[in-house]
Amino acid sequence: MKEYLKHHEWQIIEEGFDAHYNKISESIFSIGNGRMGQRANFEEEYSGDTLQGSYVAGVYYPDKTRVGWWKNGYPEYFAKVLNAPSWIGIHISIDSHKLDLAKCNVVNFVRTLDMKTGLLTRKFSAVLPDGKQVNVEAKRFCSMANGEVGAIRYALTPVNFSAKAVISIAVDADVVNKDSNYDEKFWEEVYRKAEDHQAIVVAQTKKTKFHVATGMRYAILQDGKEASKRINYEERDKYAGNIVQIDLNQGKEIVVYKYGAILSSENHAKDKLVANCQDVLNKAVEKGFERLFEDHAAVWKHKWDECDITIEGDIAAQQGIRFNIFQLTQTYTGEDERLNIGPKGFTGEKYGGSTYWDTEAYCLPFYLGTAEQQVAKNLLIYRHKHLQRAIENAGKLGFKNGAALYPMVTMNGEECHNEWEITFEEIHRNGAIAYAIYDYIRYTGDESYLSSHGLDVLVGISRFWAQRVNFSKDKNKYVMLGVTGPNEYENNVNNNWYTNYIARWTLNYTLESLANVKAGNVKDYSRIVGNLSLKDDETALWKKIADNMYLPEDKTRGVILQQDGFLDKDIMPVSQLAKEDRPLNQKWSWDRILRSCFIKQADVLQGLYFFEDDFDTDTIKRNFDFYEPMTVHESSLSPCVHVILASKLGYEEKAYEMYLRTSRLDLDDYNNDTEDGCHITSMAGTWLSVIKGFGGMRVKEDTLHFTPFIPKKWKSYSFRIEFRGRVIKVKVSNQRIETTLVSGDPFNIKINNEPVSLSHNKTFEKVLA
Amino acid sequence: MKEYLKHHEWQIIEEGFDAHYNKISESIFSIGNGRMGQRANFEEEYSGDTLQGSYVAGVYYPDKTRVGWWKNGYPEYFAKVLNAPSWIGIHISIDSHKLDLAKCNVVNFVRTLDMKTGLLTRKFSAVLPDGKQVNVEAKRFCSMANGEVGAIRYALTPVNFSAKAVISIAVDADVVNKDSNYDEKFWEEVYRKAEDHQAIVVAQTKKTKFHVATGMRYAILQDGKEASKRINYEERDKYAGNIVQIDLNQGKEIVVYKYGAILSSENHAKDKLVANCQDVLNKAVEKGFERLFEDHAAVWKHKWDECDITIEGDIAAQQGIRFNIFQLTQTYTGEDERLNIGPKGFTGEKYGGSTYWDTEAYCLPFYLGTAEQQVAKNLLIYRHKHLQRAIENAGKLGFKNGAALYPMVTMNGEECHNEWEITFEEIHRNGAIAYAIYDYIRYTGDESYLSSHGLDVLVGISRFWAQRVNFSKDKNKYVMLGVTGPNEYENNVNNNWYTNYIARWTLNYTLESLANVKAGNVKDYSRIVGNLSLKDDETALWKKIADNMYLPEDKTRGVILQQDGFLDKDIMPVSQLAKEDRPLNQKWSWDRILRSCFIKQADVLQGLYFFEDDFDTDTIKRNFDFYEPMTVHESSLSPCVHVILASKLGYEEKAYEMYLRTSRLDLDDYNNDTEDGCHITSMAGTWLSVIKGFGGMRVKEDTLHFTPFIPKKWKSYSFRIEFRGRVIKVKVSNQRIETTLVSGDPFNIKINNEPVSLSHNKTFEKVLA
Repeated sequence: MKEYLKHHEWQIIEEGFDAHYNKISESIFSIGNGRMGQRANFEEEYSGDTLQGSYVAGVYYPDKTRVGWWKNGYPEYFAKVLNAPSWIGIHISIDSHKLDLAKCNVVNFVRTLDMKTGLLTRKFSAVLPDGKQVNVEAKRFCSMANGEVGAIRYALTPVNFSAKAVISIAVDADVVNKDSNYDEKFWEEVYRKAEDHQAIVVAQTKKTKFHVATGMRYAILQDGKEASKRINYEERDKYAGNIVQIDLNQGKEIVVYKYGAILSSENHAKDKLVANCQDVLNKAVEKGFERLFEDHAAVWKHKWDECDITIEGDIAAQQGIRFNIFQLTQTYTGEDERLNIGPKGFTGEKYGGSTYWDTEAYCLPFYLGTAEQQVAKNLLIYRHKHLQRAIENAGKLGFKNGAALYPMVTMNGEECHNEWEITFEEIHRNGAIAYAIYDYIRYTGDESYLSSHGLDVLVGISRFWAQRVNFSKDKNKYVMLGVTGPNEYENNVNNNWYTNYIARWTLNYTLESLANVKAGNVKDYSRIVGNLSLKDDETALWKKIADNMYLPEDKTRGVILQQDGFLDKDIMPVSQLAKEDRPLNQKWSWDRILRSCFIKQADVLQGLYFFEDDFDTDTIKRNFDFYEPMTVHESSLSPCVHVILASKLGYEEKAYEMYLRTSRLDLDDYNNDTEDGCHITSMAGTWLSVIKGFGGMRVKEDTLHFTPFIPKKWKSYSFRIEFRGRVIKVKVSNQRIETTLVSGDPFNIKINNEPVSLSHNKTFEKVLA
Repeated sequence: MKEYLKHHEWQIIEEGFDAHYNKISESIFSIGNGRMGQRANFEEEYSGDTLQGSYVAGVYYPDKTRVGWWKNGYPEYFAKVLNAPSWIGIHISIDSHKLDLAKCNVVNFVRTLDMKTGLLTRKFSAVLPDGKQVNVEAKRFCSMANGEVGAIRYALTPVNFSAKAVISIAVDADVVNKDSNYDEKFWEEVYRKAEDHQAIVVAQTKKTKFHVATGMRYAILQDGKEASKRINYEERDKYAGNIVQIDLNQGKEIVVYKYGAILSSENHAKDKLVANCQDVLNKAVEKGFERLFEDHAAVWKHKWDECDITIEGDIAAQQGIRFNIFQLTQTYTGEDERLNIGPKGFTGEKYGGSTYWDTEAYCLPFYLGTAEQQVAKNLLIYRHKHLQRAIENAGKLGFKNGAALYPMVTMNGEECHNEWEITFEEIHRNGAIAYAIYDYIRYTGDESYLSSHGLDVLVGISRFWAQRVNFSKDKNKYVMLGVTGPNEYENNVNNNWYTNYIARWTLNYTLESLANVKAGNVKDYSRIVGNLSLKDDETALWKKIADNMYLPEDKTRGVILQQDGFLDKDIMPVSQLAKEDRPLNQKWSWDRILRSCFIKQADVLQGLYFFEDDFDTDTIKRNFDFYEPMTVHESSLSPCVHVILASKLGYEEKAYEMYLRTSRLDLDDYNNDTEDGCHITSMAGTWLSVIKGFGGMRVKEDTLHFTPFIPKKWKSYSFRIEFRGRVIKVKVSNQRIETTLVSGDPFNIKINNEPVSLSHNKTFEKVLA
């Protein structure tokens, strides 16, 4: 855990340049707009340690590299998130010295990410090897108002000299992935042209043939006027730009305005890319940096109005929650139903692919609570569109008759991850996709989704579970062998409780949903059952399996067992580990992790969170007390569940400790891996921690229930919730909870299980015990 | 299972050219000499489906390609067996048509491997697209008398035409591995030179910097005299040769004699390679093809005298056993203690690395029984030399204080395999390495090996086991979690019986060996204990663990359990599988294989074979009856154990069925994978099947015991055994067993548990019931 960033309510601030932290900062200060984005790489050249990364949503490479022994059933390819063409470069040489922060004396370095407006700013003074000092202020944003536009204002002042400078301003598609073997490059040039004050490169990805046009135009101002300069065009493979020779005069600032346009063939005809890119550039230049920024900031204002959480009395916590909401918002805007929430967003290339079970298990509630219903529905429809692919995927693994196994990782519905213990065995993802349908309907009341889409998916998943179990004569129960649960620190276990439980739940929920649709609309029911060729003996089998599913438990301790054989382990708390053993995934070999009792994320607790109404509080407490001490939280998805359960159980300090961990996971680099990128999907877990954890919000009886508490250190916290056409604001302080119906019809909620009537713009206050 | 090869006692014969079988034949007809060898690729160019492969013992490439998620603890590299420079090419064009069997009409094609003399012969008539017919007879061998020499006699007759021909004769290091990603090539040129009738190329491997000189000289004879021809030199990167223009006269045979020399920097100073290669070539040419062949055939005669097994009355079985002995003999000669028995020998590149547990578990008895004691001892010393590396390997996985984990696969003692479920978990290999020490001493009586080398290794391995187990409070026993047994169709299981058993056995055997050494020579004992810093509390712990090791069993059925939870599976015999499901590893996805009851090789039975004296026959029978029907034998190492146990149990038909499977595994391509190369190490299992299976040979009470039977179809079988300075011959027929002491002092053996005295050159006959 590192603490080198300044605490601030709305900003992330790095003071002083420490090359050692640079890759971590490049991740944290990343900016994006749902369509594209990039790490906080410098505009200048930088010869120090850096992970260069620009990304375009939906663009990937199907890597077929093979190593070791290929397991039958592996997918065709592993989807690499591609480092995409870069539009940010402004390379500067002064009298043959490059401005390169790795080779200068850097002072007064400040990097700031203003989350309120989505603006990345960097200021510094650099003393070149020959003693020349320049002051630089660089501002950059990726427009939330126009997902294809980015802009930079780069101001440079020669402090103690006058000299000739050469500025190279270009777009560069000659980029490489860090995880590329043999330095293979994944882009090929389609088009390039350098012109006066402008350059465009169109590059295509190998194999997938995505075309991406990357263009730039620029202006250089001195004394508020276009500076006099000499321009040469520079073109080489996948690269085009201008080389500008300009006189720097001591004390006189020059300002480079650079506009970037990034267009993908996902949104434009390939043969129109150049023309459309030109058009986008023209409009951006016409508008200019300031007005582009105003439009951008206005969108951010609207977003913050919708989803901000304020915390009084704890700046670190306030900064943490806003950072999470900021990253989540700039990663996925909910506008494009083909997109999903990549685990690293626009902050890194690691993991590959874009869609994980994270979306359903962690992100959906955030969008349900902060955006219009269609955004969450789009996430569900995304999976409905992939149903046929999920059936094909299951077919490749030997399942039949419409059984669906959704991929562990995907770009387009196909599985694109190839570790057998995950790809083939981490099948609990199927359960989360079923659960999301339930969660969506519970929240929105939109029962019609079942007959329009939901049952198709539920039946496909139920068919999978029914084929995936087998009957154990030894146990006289249905068992599920060879799975990996959400706790990925166990592989290929038998009877993972979470997986068995969610499978049983899916079967029951599907049966119940079928009955409900039948009761509501027999014609709908007949159509669905007919389309799916669903027979009574099939549903009868589901019931038999659900009624006889094996669920491992230890009656002596009164706890659920994570899986068969868990008690054979050497059970000990994390607190007994030496500091140098952590994080385990960097310090211990994989086999040692697997046979230890230590838990990456506690899937028993995950199940108790999902299905809390099935268990009494004592049971939840016994299991929390058993599993929490063994949990190392080396999954970013882990701490939020602990916040929610600890809050429920009244473990306020544990809840707060876990909250800090989830909300400042990347800011404080808890898991030593932020340099690879931020943990985007788990950021929704931070939101959950406040809303479902501290706020104790639940949807029950078709309305909202709150059982709030406030961490000791805080003065107050407040959040805004969209619920069935209404918006309510909730503010919790030490003494009271205030709820205000901001918009929508009056309705009744419950606070600490007591009914409360809300009417428009009235604030209801309730004193907390 | 395919049957396209002719049955013959001493030869492998393929009649007629079927391109579809070509890669399988290339594997089966491979030739080598312990130092080098190659697949039965054609001398001519061949544009059809082929796996080109030449190999040099000990030469590998450390591949660091990465895919997916790297597990902590993985070794630095994966050792690729390298396709090495080729010396066999004789490329022929006649009037602009290439002689390419993929593009000719091929008739009277016969490919023969004479196992008696190690000679590969190929005859055919080819009709070129323009109607010209040539007859070809090509003979090739890799000299067993000089491991650096190979020779070809390639005779070509123009049947119905006269024309100009161009013959390209070269050495070619510009080769690629089939498993190379991005077509990466692993050889770089160091030297090349084409001269009159000669060419030499020296190439080095990337990273590992092995240098290999490959040279060739040739002569072309017509009417017994050097033919008149025009020669041009041809050189390009990593390639050198002559291009010969020659007149072909209708009906007149020309004969190309090509001599190859393959020298590695493992045996020569790098700066002497060219000169020494020249020297080897000169000597080879001087000797000439016929005398080289005589020397070569003489070595084979000696080898066959030592290790032949004859079978009367069953040509398929006779051919099978000889094929196995032939391949095993040409793969490993026992002369170079740095080498070991690669799983594919010189027949393919698959699997990578050279040394597996196969050597100790399957191959050692073959060398004990057929070669002088030093050969088997060299195999043991190979591991002793790697002890420090094994300790380092264990250290990387978190083990301490001299615990040794031998690698799953190695070239030089380092682990070079990276599948976590194998590399980290298939730790039973350690047990086999300990068992080999016991097996060697039991066979040879060489107790001194314990104090000279054995105890070092045994203590290292025992230390590993003691740290690898943990105490289960739940079971009140020591357990071993997260292992993969020899049955690789289970991964990451708890309490694999075989692994737990061999671990317990190792601890006991080490304690017993320490006591024996102490009793025999206290000074030796003190030295060893001192060097190893072995303390009494450590050995006390070993005893405690051995006395309290958990061994899973099912008391109801009276069978051992392969691992915890095995009875949760859907238990069914292989006979219920549909034909299209086989082999499972090509038809089923990995997860389906893992959760099925089907067994790649039955490790419970492997344990009963190793430790048969610990169990009564009824127990062995119950377990055989339980596990055998679930075993798919998709490991080449599987059937031999079943032959041995079935023989012991009197299941004669099962024993014979399994024998055919092991002995003709590659000849009949049982597992659909012979095209990748032959299963060399399992060939020792075929030898075991006859000797320990049908012959019932055991070492007990410091002598040999036999309890023979003969398969119904056979008239007789006979073999020769070296044992403690003696050689005996055994012949078994329907009626009787004949044993002859060929050399060495008289001694007593037991046949069917009755004592028999053998004296020199006397044949003892015993009538069988």
